[in-house]
Amino acid sequence: MKLQLAIDLITADEAVKLVSEVKEYIDIVEIGTPVIINEGLNAVQKMKTAHPDIQVLADLKIMDAAGYEVSQATSYGADIVTILGAAEDASIQGAIKAAKEAGKEILVDMIAVKDLAGRAKELDAMGADYICVHTGYDLQAEGQTPLESLKIIKDNVKQSKTAVAGGITLDTLAEAASVHPDLIIMGGGIANHEQPKEAARQSKELIK
Amino acid sequence: MKLQLAIDLITADEAVKLVSEVKEYIDIVEIGTPVIINEGLNAVQKMKTAHPDIQVLADLKIMDAAGYEVSQATSYGADIVTILGAAEDASIQGAIKAAKEAGKEILVDMIAVKDLAGRAKELDAMGADYICVHTGYDLQAEGQTPLESLKIIKDNVKQSKTAVAGGITLDTLAEAASVHPDLIIMGGGIANHEQPKEAARQSKELIK
Repeated sequence: MKLQLAIDLITADEAVKLVSEVKEYIDIVEIGTPVIINEGLNAVQKMKTAHPDIQVLADLKIMDAAGYEVSQATSYGADIVTILGAAEDASIQGAIKAAKEAGKEILVDMIAVKDLAGRAKELDAMGADYICVHTGYDLQAEGQTPLESLKIIKDNVKQSKTAVAGGITLDTLAEAASVHPDLIIMGGGIANHEQPKEAARQSKELIK
Repeated sequence: MKLQLAIDLITADEAVKLVSEVKEYIDIVEIGTPVIINEGLNAVQKMKTAHPDIQVLADLKIMDAAGYEVSQATSYGADIVTILGAAEDASIQGAIKAAKEAGKEILVDMIAVKDLAGRAKELDAMGADYICVHTGYDLQAEGQTPLESLKIIKDNVKQSKTAVAGGITLDTLAEAASVHPDLIIMGGGIANHEQPKEAARQSKELIK
């Protein structure tokens, strides 16, 4: 099981420093959508240049022009690029093709997808590298969590790796890990912790 | 009927120059998703600073953290911000609320929404300023156009303004205008034309 640190609400420069602190405990660092909207793909490049030894995920949440966007992101150093599960099949296929050509991976973000089981089967058949259930900020605010959704995709995916994101903290990590996804994504649970390095260490320990 | 110029595949600096040329014929300039992904919200600020007398739309295609993203975009000078129709209701409501507080507007992009009629009714009731049918690049490549979709939302929307986007050129503009949307969005049809100013002039003339 891999651990991804999602960085959403700090600058790319602050993120580079944070990763220096926690790097030994995380497998993938995510440059979150808000950082990309604020700073552009330069934020991805800054991270990859500063930390070439860690995988960098660019959370583009692609909805269109998928081949182009994936190519752009990988040219800035992204190892994994996200597309929305809600996107058209033509876009998903374009993203997967462009990633394969670059020797990189696609994570499909299932945020706001209603038919999780059906869509997960389709994405699995299309060759998505990761399928990620995700309770976004706006539904976390309503008290929702992604664990039931994770069970649904685990039951419906054969080839793709599974991932889970959405408000996971040290308090809820063990429960998420008990469903055995391939990747667990934590954001504020590490980044906003009083001691991020210690939170990352404990997180890595919990999912061993 | 208003005319929007969507800028997707050039830099913000090139876009500022292009708008200088065509400004007298367009009502809104869109900083497209690819430009924002490449350069961040700085691209929006560059346009608004250079051309404070034209409305600027930031095509964020928001899927989450909607209130935050809208506030960010308006703080960089956006007059209109886009959110995906596929987003959760909580996100749409958060976007509309944040835009109203800033005295700005929300355009909901219906790209990849399957139940256009049902979703348009819901978005209309939520108070979306614009509801926009949109055939993205990846479906344009399959020969699709947004005109039938435009008719569907025109029949199902009472309060919101309607908009249409997706491969519209001088050759197809009259047909789109015949459905009477409030806003027509053209991208390459003007930006990639040999004479962008003349294309913009003719476009404005056609939708009078």
